[in-house]
Amino acid sequence: MGKKKTDPELEKEVKKEEEEEEEDTKIVKDLKEIDDKYLAIEREYEKEVQELQKKYTERQTPLLEQRMKMLTDSSAAENQEDKALGTPACRGFWLQAMKNLPALEDQIEEWDEEVLEYCCDVKKSYLDESDNQKGFKLSFHFVENPFFTNDVLWKEYHTEEGSPYTGEIDTTEIKACEITWSEGKDVTVETVKKKVKGGGAKKSKQKGKEKEEPRDSFFRGFFRNLRPDMPMPDDVNLEEIQQMCDDEDDEEGMVEMLMENDHEIGCSVRDNLIPYAVRWYTGEAAPEDDYDEDDEEEDEEDDEEDDDEDDDEDEDEPPQKGKKPTRAAGGKAAGGDQKTEECKQQ
Amino acid sequence: MGKKKTDPELEKEVKKEEEEEEEDTKIVKDLKEIDDKYLAIEREYEKEVQELQKKYTERQTPLLEQRMKMLTDSSAAENQEDKALGTPACRGFWLQAMKNLPALEDQIEEWDEEVLEYCCDVKKSYLDESDNQKGFKLSFHFVENPFFTNDVLWKEYHTEEGSPYTGEIDTTEIKACEITWSEGKDVTVETVKKKVKGGGAKKSKQKGKEKEEPRDSFFRGFFRNLRPDMPMPDDVNLEEIQQMCDDEDDEEGMVEMLMENDHEIGCSVRDNLIPYAVRWYTGEAAPEDDYDEDDEEEDEEDDEEDDDEDDDEDEDEPPQKGKKPTRAAGGKAAGGDQKTEECKQQ
Repeated sequence: MGKKKTDPELEKEVKKEEEEEEEDTKIVKDLKEIDDKYLAIEREYEKEVQELQKKYTERQTPLLEQRMKMLTDSSAAENQEDKALGTPACRGFWLQAMKNLPALEDQIEEWDEEVLEYCCDVKKSYLDESDNQKGFKLSFHFVENPFFTNDVLWKEYHTEEGSPYTGEIDTTEIKACEITWSEGKDVTVETVKKKVKGGGAKKSKQKGKEKEEPRDSFFRGFFRNLRPDMPMPDDVNLEEIQQMCDDEDDEEGMVEMLMENDHEIGCSVRDNLIPYAVRWYTGEAAPEDDYDEDDEEEDEEDDEEDDDEDDDEDEDEPPQKGKKPTRAAGGKAAGGDQKTEECKQQ
Repeated sequence: MGKKKTDPELEKEVKKEEEEEEEDTKIVKDLKEIDDKYLAIEREYEKEVQELQKKYTERQTPLLEQRMKMLTDSSAAENQEDKALGTPACRGFWLQAMKNLPALEDQIEEWDEEVLEYCCDVKKSYLDESDNQKGFKLSFHFVENPFFTNDVLWKEYHTEEGSPYTGEIDTTEIKACEITWSEGKDVTVETVKKKVKGGGAKKSKQKGKEKEEPRDSFFRGFFRNLRPDMPMPDDVNLEEIQQMCDDEDDEEGMVEMLMENDHEIGCSVRDNLIPYAVRWYTGEAAPEDDYDEDDEEEDEEDDEEDDDEDDDEDEDEPPQKGKKPTRAAGGKAAGGDQKTEECKQQ
């Protein structure tokens, strides 16, 4: 009897497919042929661009290596203390560059900063050198440090073409390494005193019991595994995501939105931060703050971070220029997307 | 005395400039040199991509011309009435394609539809063939029609590179043609009865006085001149813009936001609609609606348009597939931006 229920559904589906095929009148069929020819030429073009890109990347890579060597040259350190950090020649280079990148500035918390001073390089590579649409990998290299034992923290964006007609890229999975925190050094949690019910002798006995609770952190949010079919992770800052989500409130849509947003941040690291890290470090690359002075209260949030910096003032750390609330990490396209306006988009 | 007030300010500015120059330590200077070399190679790459693009566009253009000829072939019209329309071989081709494009679907009102049936082609060109970053032009071609006397409605996006480090493209001006509406045929206004104060004889005397008031229309919103220094036009749907603007509420920022948003729509017409119009017409290019059935109330807004369509069902008009609330025209990147993910973005 169950079969009977299935049959009409199957029939319906077959009929639907037939209808869709029937739907194409002579003119639509002829038009589609032209469309296909157009797309075939586009594919040829894309292939040529990819080869061009590879050729030029090979010319640019030695420059990034040279940069890394200069930054990690410990003989150029201003003082003994800096020698153990990630970029002895320019203390806190990557921390500062990342803090000035709109896509990352809101991700880096106060407690992440000390850790990022041990970052010695940020690198990128494509998962499939013959097809960049398959995704890319970001690697954050660290020198020996008191916080974790990893020497590389990595993250992979697995993507595929969503539609040739919209240029949509779907993020199918985000894989990240696990961070092996040293004892008591995990900055992604905070130790809170456990609330004790009751009083008197019981309370004094339990006093001092502590519990670790997750808190916002670059190392928590950025190195997170995500798949479209997974439930929303508990430790995600839901408020931020909800702001991006407009009218969506189903959880599956939210995880996808989180992945899309994450992919945009990754593209900005790949296309803006890594190639022009020096200009992000100096602040020259940061978007100009063309707000009126009246808008300055919007920068209040950053004060905490700025305070930190004052201590280092005589260590060649440039001021944070152009800090402003930005949309890059949220709803708006990351710079990298706009960058390629000049690429062929027929 | 007034001079005295100016001097310290001038001094301060000079000092600030000096400071900025002084700021570059040896290491930063050396690093910037590497950065500059990287950017120089990037420029070479971009130039090569632009040439490649031109070469491939030349191969693709004849296909778009062939498409236009097929669509406008009046001998292929199904009935006499269609012969006077823009695409006799496939009635309402451009109207349907545009309605299925996420960037345009919310722009086209019920009263615009009849007009768009006279559209016979949509074309694009770059303002400066040797530098695509300068901007582009969209042209909507029309056959003789009862609504306006123009045979082409055009729109130019003037742009420039905002920053090489973020790939930001600034829209400096949007120029659009003026539409010469035929008497009483302007769909961008509606005739409303004027409210008459008082009653009795006075009221009955003035009864019937009519006044034209602006209303939302593709022809109003799309063919609008915009410059960053102008005040917000009165007839803009402010609610929509405010939704995109997040925390900004100064008017200048709003006009810039409007221009940015408009530029994204233009890019989607240029990169998605024009090349693959056939797939937009059939609905195959439209993003899949992978929402649950519970979300269907979100589509209620579209019902008006859908009703219209039911009348034409036997005229080979395919159903509107994949209609869903989209972010393409709003905060999120238009498809075109994502399309070029594969382009070099170092």
